[in-house]
Amino acid sequence: MTDKNSTKSKKDENTIFIGNKPIMSYVLATVAEFNGKSTDMVAIKARGQLIYKAVDVAEIVRGRFLTQAQLKDIKIGTENVTNRNGKAQNVSIIEIYLTTKAPKK
Amino acid sequence: MTDKNSTKSKKDENTIFIGNKPIMSYVLATVAEFNGKSTDMVAIKARGQLIYKAVDVAEIVRGRFLTQAQLKDIKIGTENVTNRNGKAQNVSIIEIYLTTKAPKK
Repeated sequence: MTDKNSTKSKKDENTIFIGNKPIMSYVLATVAEFNGKSTDMVAIKARGQLIYKAVDVAEIVRGRFLTQAQLKDIKIGTENVTNRNGKAQNVSIIEIYLTTKAPKK
Repeated sequence: MTDKNSTKSKKDENTIFIGNKPIMSYVLATVAEFNGKSTDMVAIKARGQLIYKAVDVAEIVRGRFLTQAQLKDIKIGTENVTNRNGKAQNVSIIEIYLTTKAPKK
């Protein structure tokens, strides 16, 4: 994590976690996050087979709704989760950071 | 693309395209690409719902097989493809670049 100064709760506020809802729900949630809270950075996070949805959301937000939004950073990693049978399992994660702040020149 | 000096065919040689085979096939193909051709950069590309597999492959290669491999770059984008009904459709893509070259100091 690069933003060590922000508290965890503040970071979670600007994060969209991808689940099983339709993609447009997360697109609208991302746009609302930018507009409602006047933040200039939103993280879109997903894991496992939902990773493609995070990419779709970022691409649709950038392409159709907030064309000024830029990709700030993309991170991938592995998390160890316990599945419903109590077995530990590795799952891949992705974090896509979108920003509406103009890059410093 | 950053490596403007390489020809297209040379670049394709160092690219693993994710399809419907088991994940370990692509993991082994990636490791073989590094070892067999003595290249220090391999691109793993996928689109649509196969995007999670590209992340899995990169994570497994880095975590278990080539622990010296580093994430060089991750790109996401949108491609316009024509589906089997002749209809144009946008699909998200991911490109993950792994390198075994030590970063310049």
